[in-house]
Amino acid sequence: MMFYFRTAIAYFELLRPLNGLIAFGSVFLGAIFASGSFVSSTLIVAVSAFLVLSAGNTINDFCDYQIDAINKPTRPIPSGYVQRQHALGLSLVLLLIGLSLGVSTGDIYAIIIVTIVSMTLLLYAVWLKKIPLIGNVAIGILTGLTFIAGGVTVKSIKGTMVPAAFAFLFTTAREIIKDIEDIEGDVAQETGTIPVRWGEHIAAVVASAFMLTLILFSLIPYVLGMYSWLYLIVVVVGVDLVLIFLLAKLWCDMSKESCAKIQQWMKLDIFVGLFAFYLGSLS
Amino acid sequence: MMFYFRTAIAYFELLRPLNGLIAFGSVFLGAIFASGSFVSSTLIVAVSAFLVLSAGNTINDFCDYQIDAINKPTRPIPSGYVQRQHALGLSLVLLLIGLSLGVSTGDIYAIIIVTIVSMTLLLYAVWLKKIPLIGNVAIGILTGLTFIAGGVTVKSIKGTMVPAAFAFLFTTAREIIKDIEDIEGDVAQETGTIPVRWGEHIAAVVASAFMLTLILFSLIPYVLGMYSWLYLIVVVVGVDLVLIFLLAKLWCDMSKESCAKIQQWMKLDIFVGLFAFYLGSLS
Repeated sequence: MMFYFRTAIAYFELLRPLNGLIAFGSVFLGAIFASGSFVSSTLIVAVSAFLVLSAGNTINDFCDYQIDAINKPTRPIPSGYVQRQHALGLSLVLLLIGLSLGVSTGDIYAIIIVTIVSMTLLLYAVWLKKIPLIGNVAIGILTGLTFIAGGVTVKSIKGTMVPAAFAFLFTTAREIIKDIEDIEGDVAQETGTIPVRWGEHIAAVVASAFMLTLILFSLIPYVLGMYSWLYLIVVVVGVDLVLIFLLAKLWCDMSKESCAKIQQWMKLDIFVGLFAFYLGSLS
Repeated sequence: MMFYFRTAIAYFELLRPLNGLIAFGSVFLGAIFASGSFVSSTLIVAVSAFLVLSAGNTINDFCDYQIDAINKPTRPIPSGYVQRQHALGLSLVLLLIGLSLGVSTGDIYAIIIVTIVSMTLLLYAVWLKKIPLIGNVAIGILTGLTFIAGGVTVKSIKGTMVPAAFAFLFTTAREIIKDIEDIEGDVAQETGTIPVRWGEHIAAVVASAFMLTLILFSLIPYVLGMYSWLYLIVVVVGVDLVLIFLLAKLWCDMSKESCAKIQQWMKLDIFVGLFAFYLGSLS
């Protein structure tokens, strides 16, 4: 009984469903940002995003089983609860269902996006993540694309471009800081992150560049009159000020503990930013 | 220069502004859940919630300086970047401004809520947190109250009661699991958490009771016709299923690492639940 429980938990952890749920939510947010509402194909694309991302996470564990056996021995495959070939099979089934759902919308843009996302996730697992910066940027682009996919379902992507760009900059910066956090284990495994290949100072410079770009970028939608003063208040206090202090923290202390804190702050702070877009579009 | 930077970061960390921002957002969400929109007094109450919670966090560090000196030596006060009496002064100033803003709305319910919240935060710092369960429940109630406060600003609290109850159950359960995570340090400091006083198994039973109540509770709003089928889908897949697996994980493994993961999952999963309420009220 206990074994089946643990196996079920292992499959659950293999999919990393919380990431999938965030993608699911981002598709809906995209539709809501674009049109204030959503349609039935929004749900279909959201489920498709959930499944395709789950497939991507699973195939990533399939590829990384040797590294994980050393770095993360409690992950589903190295712990022995999920057989490696079962993970591959599950991943392909999830990918197929996810792709089919995307295609079933009949919308050419939705089909293009779901195909790009699927191929990028596969490429990421086997190759892109080994290239410094490119791997981080790939994850950033995929995160931004989910908002645009939501806009596609309501035939309007105009309102999704700014949140997508915001999510891209935020996620890319956060992924690089996560790489600084993980540098010890990654050096041992010779992975291809920026801090491993180019050193943590260059990684901090690149992450800072994305964060500073984000701070400047966050002001533009207000200046252009796309969002109200409430957007400006929340984004300046809740995002820009937080990012400035996180930047200061990063440069004062690049230790594992410090970077862990910074990236966790950023994970929650993305929601503050999205909330700013939402509030700013309401009033 | 570096010193001033670090001091500024220390003051920032003292306030725990991310918690404050979540309270700020919860007030707005309360108004949006209640009426689909917000008014100028929503912003005033949201800023008040931010300031009062920042005051509460600051006074908590003021009270805990001896415990933190051992458990969390990098916190602002034990690290020496913030003097203890300055933290007390800052806390009182923040509380005064926060209370004044709440009173300035002229709404009797807003005034009652901001007064209750302020007094509870003070009581929590000096006393409530030492009583097993009561401390956790206090934090849960305060979290729920922010949604109701948002409803008060738009003169309608009906739509806020269910999200408030949901946030209460979720937060209380999460706080108890955080206590299991922190048991080692807390035992040494003789703090008054459930796992320290009654053992981690009873703590897990109490946390599980809150989580199971939450799962059952999450179905009621759909059965009563308050939210659409989309609420049901998202809450069952995104919250209930996640909670069931987290429950299984908790009972398979109550180690510090396992509880840390569980409470971090819950922190993000609360957003999924709130998103379910929002989506369910749209369609």
